[in-house]
Amino acid sequence: MAAVQDKIVRINMKDLTARFEDTPSDWKALGGRALTSRIVSEEVPPLSHPLGSKNRLVFAPGLLTGTPAANSGRLSAGAKSPLTGTIKEANAGGTAAQALAKLGIKAVVIEDKPEKGWYGIRITKNGVEIFEEKELIGAGNFQVVDEVVNRYGKQCSVVTIGPAGEMKMLAANISVKDPDGKLRSHGRGGLGAVMGSKGVKFVAIDPQGAEGIHIADKEAFTQASKLFSKGVANHDITKALAEYGTDVLINIIHNAGGLPTRNFTKGQFDGHDGIAGETMNKLIKERGGKVRHNCQKGCIIMCSQVYNDKQGRYKTSGFEYESIWAMGADCCVDNLDILAEADHWLDDLGLDTVEIGVAFGVAMEAGVLDFGDGKRMVQIIKEDISKGTPLGRIIGNGAATVGRAYGVTRVPVVKNQAIPAYDPRAIKGIGITYATSTMGADHTAGYTIAANILGSGGNVDPLSKEGQIELSRNLQIATAAIDSTGLCLFTAFAILDDERLLPAIVDMINARFGTTLAVDDVMELGKSVLKMEREFNLRAGFTNEDDRLPEFFSNEPLPPHNAVWDFTGEEIDAFWDF
Amino acid sequence: MAAVQDKIVRINMKDLTARFEDTPSDWKALGGRALTSRIVSEEVPPLSHPLGSKNRLVFAPGLLTGTPAANSGRLSAGAKSPLTGTIKEANAGGTAAQALAKLGIKAVVIEDKPEKGWYGIRITKNGVEIFEEKELIGAGNFQVVDEVVNRYGKQCSVVTIGPAGEMKMLAANISVKDPDGKLRSHGRGGLGAVMGSKGVKFVAIDPQGAEGIHIADKEAFTQASKLFSKGVANHDITKALAEYGTDVLINIIHNAGGLPTRNFTKGQFDGHDGIAGETMNKLIKERGGKVRHNCQKGCIIMCSQVYNDKQGRYKTSGFEYESIWAMGADCCVDNLDILAEADHWLDDLGLDTVEIGVAFGVAMEAGVLDFGDGKRMVQIIKEDISKGTPLGRIIGNGAATVGRAYGVTRVPVVKNQAIPAYDPRAIKGIGITYATSTMGADHTAGYTIAANILGSGGNVDPLSKEGQIELSRNLQIATAAIDSTGLCLFTAFAILDDERLLPAIVDMINARFGTTLAVDDVMELGKSVLKMEREFNLRAGFTNEDDRLPEFFSNEPLPPHNAVWDFTGEEIDAFWDF
Repeated sequence: MAAVQDKIVRINMKDLTARFEDTPSDWKALGGRALTSRIVSEEVPPLSHPLGSKNRLVFAPGLLTGTPAANSGRLSAGAKSPLTGTIKEANAGGTAAQALAKLGIKAVVIEDKPEKGWYGIRITKNGVEIFEEKELIGAGNFQVVDEVVNRYGKQCSVVTIGPAGEMKMLAANISVKDPDGKLRSHGRGGLGAVMGSKGVKFVAIDPQGAEGIHIADKEAFTQASKLFSKGVANHDITKALAEYGTDVLINIIHNAGGLPTRNFTKGQFDGHDGIAGETMNKLIKERGGKVRHNCQKGCIIMCSQVYNDKQGRYKTSGFEYESIWAMGADCCVDNLDILAEADHWLDDLGLDTVEIGVAFGVAMEAGVLDFGDGKRMVQIIKEDISKGTPLGRIIGNGAATVGRAYGVTRVPVVKNQAIPAYDPRAIKGIGITYATSTMGADHTAGYTIAANILGSGGNVDPLSKEGQIELSRNLQIATAAIDSTGLCLFTAFAILDDERLLPAIVDMINARFGTTLAVDDVMELGKSVLKMEREFNLRAGFTNEDDRLPEFFSNEPLPPHNAVWDFTGEEIDAFWDF
Repeated sequence: MAAVQDKIVRINMKDLTARFEDTPSDWKALGGRALTSRIVSEEVPPLSHPLGSKNRLVFAPGLLTGTPAANSGRLSAGAKSPLTGTIKEANAGGTAAQALAKLGIKAVVIEDKPEKGWYGIRITKNGVEIFEEKELIGAGNFQVVDEVVNRYGKQCSVVTIGPAGEMKMLAANISVKDPDGKLRSHGRGGLGAVMGSKGVKFVAIDPQGAEGIHIADKEAFTQASKLFSKGVANHDITKALAEYGTDVLINIIHNAGGLPTRNFTKGQFDGHDGIAGETMNKLIKERGGKVRHNCQKGCIIMCSQVYNDKQGRYKTSGFEYESIWAMGADCCVDNLDILAEADHWLDDLGLDTVEIGVAFGVAMEAGVLDFGDGKRMVQIIKEDISKGTPLGRIIGNGAATVGRAYGVTRVPVVKNQAIPAYDPRAIKGIGITYATSTMGADHTAGYTIAANILGSGGNVDPLSKEGQIELSRNLQIATAAIDSTGLCLFTAFAILDDERLLPAIVDMINARFGTTLAVDDVMELGKSVLKMEREFNLRAGFTNEDDRLPEFFSNEPLPPHNAVWDFTGEEIDAFWDF
C-alpha cells in the first residue's frame, strides 16, 4: 500500500486497518483548517460524544506545506472538541506537517476506537503500520519523542500525547516533534483527549525516501516566495518576535491595561517586569540559551527560544506570552523560572498551558491554593495532574471544570474554553473574537490585538466599541484562510501591512497547484470555512446565546481603565452578517 | 411590617432587607410551580450565572396549600439551575408550605447575595428577620432542624441547606422539616447551591398566631375535598405506596427489564430482592420502624416510612425507590442497610440522592471505586463529599462532572442532570419526558411509568414508540398544573383513573378563591407553565438539540429486551406541538 500524491489516509482504530483514498474532487482545493473542518463537518455527527467512537481526529498539512514557502509548515488537527463541544481546529509547527506533505498525504483521518489497549502508528512511504504499544504508555512527551527517534531514526517526525491525553483530560493537547527533538503543540480544545480516546499514543511519520510534493510552476513559485519571505522578514513585529519572543507582549499589554491579573480582576500586574520578554531575553543570554529558535524548517521569524535554567540546562522552548501570562499574571506569579518549570511539565504531560493557567487562577480564587504560590502550582502539576488524582482531574479538565467544582462565579471562559491573555473589557475587539469564534475563546482566531494595540493592519481604539465587529470579522475570515495554507499566523502582521504579500501567497498557491485563484477566492475560502464551522455548531445545539462573554465582564469594571464589556447580544450577532 | 393575605415577600441578601408586596394581579391565579417559574422567567436574566447575584430563589406554596385538601402541602422552589442552566422548579413536602400559607405568604423571593458571611432568616406573623448565623455553619440538616426548633419552638418550620449547599455543589438540595422534625427535600437541579450562593443557611417559618388562609366558599370546598380524599384513598396504587413505599417499584421495574443496572448497561439487577420494597417492609416491621409515615399534615397516602437500623435506631425516612435504585442497582449494591446509611448521610449533607447515586455509577465505570462496593461509597460520602475534598467535589457536583473528570462516555444525563430509575430504552415514554422536560432528565416531570408499566391512566406499550410523545405531553401538562396546586404528585394515579377527581380539584380551587375556573382552564395553566419554562430556556441558549438523550442509548442495546432508543430528533421535537 504505497503512498502517492495528495491522498487521504484513513486509519480505523476499531479494526486496526488503514487505507489510502484519492482526494474527493471538492476537497482538492482545501488544506489545513479548511480540510479538517470540512471532514469533521461532513463525517462527525454533531451530537456525538467527542470521546466516543463517532468522533474523528483529522490531521492535515496546509496547502503550501512541503513547498519552500517561508513558515509554511503548520499542521492542522481537527475534531469535535471535548472541551467546548464545538468543531475544533488547532494548528502547530514542528516537523510533522512537512513530513506528511513529503509523503504525499493531504490528510490523516483517525476513525472509531478500540475496545481497549494502546497503539502506535507509523506512516512511511511504504504505508501505515498500526501496532500495540506498551513501553511508552504513561510516558511524557519528551520521552516519547526520544524513544520514537531511537526506534525509527532522527528523520522521523512524531505526533504524540502525554499522560494527560491518555487520561482524556479536557485540557490535553497534541504535541509535535520540532527540528531539535523538542515539542510544539496543538494546544487548545482538548484534542489530546480525542487522540487518547482512540487509543493512539503516537504517530511516527517517516518521510525518508518519499518523493516530496510537486510544484506546477516552479519559477513562478520562486518569484512569489522570495517576495513573501522578504516582506515577512522586514516587518518590525517579526523583528521584535525574534528578539523577545511573544513574551514581548507582557509589558505592552500591561501598559495597555489589558493584562488580566489575579483571575481577571485587574488589567495590570505589579510583577510584570519579572516575567516580561525583556527579562527573558536577558536570562537566556546569561545562561547560554538561544534567543532565536525555529520550530519548523523554513522559519524566518524564529519567535521560539531555548530557555535554560540557572545551571544552564535546557528547560523549555516555545515559552509563549500566553503561557507566561496565564500562570504568571493571572495567578500573580512573578518568577520566570517557576513558570518555565511549569511550562516544561505541562509540555511533558501534554496540557494546554493557557487552559491550565486560567484553571489555576480560578482555583486560587476558590482558595485551593494562594494567589502567587507558584511552587504549589508546580507541585500540583507534578504530583496531582500527572497522576490523575481527583485534584489533578479537576484542574486538568480546565477552568470551567474548576469553576463548577468549587462554585466560583468569576470563570473566564467562552463555550467552556479559557479566555486567554487579553482582557476583553480593555481590548474590546478581542472580546468579539472570543465571543464569536467557532471554537470557544481563542485569541488566534482573529487577533485584533494587531490593530487594537500593535498598530498593525490599522488602528482601532481598544476601549471603544466602534469598528471592533468589523475588525474581528475581517481577521477571523483572513485567519481561517491563512490556517488553511499552512502558513504561520505570525506572517499575518506583515501581510496586514504590506499589500503585496497576500497576492504573493495566492501566487504561490497557484504555482503549486496550477490553479488560477484570485485574492478574493482565498478570502471566500476563509468565509466558507467560518460558515461551515458555525453550521456544525448550530447542528450541535449552539445558538447566538452561546456567543456571549461571562456575566462578570459586564458587571465588574477592570482597573486601571475601569472599563466594562458593553456589547449587546444584538451587536455581537451582527458579526455573522457576511 | 405585618404579613397579610396573599403577599409576596422579597428578601434582599445584599442589603439584608425584606419587604412585603401585594401580589400583582396577573400572578394572583398562580401558585407553586406556576408562580416560581413565572417569577424566575420574568426576573432572572436567562444568561446570568446561576450562583451569581442576579439569580433569584423563589419559594411558593401551591394554590391549595393551607386548605384542608388532602396532600396539598407541597412547597415549590424555583431558580435558574446551576446544574442544568435551565429554569428549575423542585417541590417537596414537609411543613414549610403550610406554614407560609398560614402566614398569608404566596411567595418568598430571595434576591441578590451578600459580599460574604452566612445568614439565617426568620419569618413570623410579625415580619421577617435576617441575622448573621455562625453557630450552624457547617452543620448537617438534622442538626439545623433540631437547633432551630430549640431556638424558636416546635411549631416552627425550617427550610435548610447542608454543607453541600454551603459548598455550592451542583447536586445540593434544599431540605424541609417534616412533622416529626426529620427531612424532606427539594431534590434536583442543585437549588441548594443557589441558596448557598445567597448566604442563606436556613429559613425558619413560624406560623404561630397567623390567621390562616381564607376559603371563599367553605361548604363547596368541603364537599369537593371529601370526594377528592375518598378517590385518592381508595386507589390501588395509593394502597401499595402505603404498604411498601415507592420502593415497591424495584421488583416491578426489574421485571419490566427497565431497571438501569451497572451504570445503565443492563435492565435487570440480580440483587433486586435485597433492595426491594417487600424486603424493606419486612425489615421495618422486624426493627420497630414505621411502614407508614406522613411527610406533611393532611397526607392520606403515607408513602414515607421510618427505617431503623439493626439496633432499632432511626436511620432514615422518605427512603425512596429512586434513591435506592441509584445507589443500589445502578451501583450494584444489594444491601438495604448500606443504602439507608448513605441516604441518611446524603440527607444530612443536603444532596440529591439520585444525582449522587448516578454519579457513583459513573465513578465506578471510571474505576474510582468498584461496582458493588457500597462501603467505599458510604466512606466517600462521609469523608470526601462532606469535607469537600477534590474527590468529594467531583462526585458532589453530579454525574456529568464525574463523566467529564474521568473521560467517561457512558454518562446518563440530559442537560447535565442524571437520568433517574427507569431506562428509556425499555420504557420509552419516560425517555420522551427526560429529553423534553424543561429541567433536564426528571421522571416526575411526566411520569409515563403510570401508563407504560402500572396500567394507570391507560396502557401504552413501553417498548414501542407508538403513543409515547402524546403520553408524555399530556402528563407533563397535567403535572405542571398539579405542581401549581400544592398537591402531591402521588394523587395523580387516582386522578388519572377516576374522572371525578380533576373536577373536584378545580372545585376546590374555585371554592378557595371564589373563582369560576373550568377543568380546561387548569390544563391551560399547565400548558402555559411548560411554554413559559421552555421560552426561558430558549432565551438561555437551549435548542431542540438539547432535547436529546446521550448517544449511548441509541448505540447500546439494553438486556434483557435488547432495546435501543430509536426516536429521531424530529419525532422528539413534535412534543412541543401544542
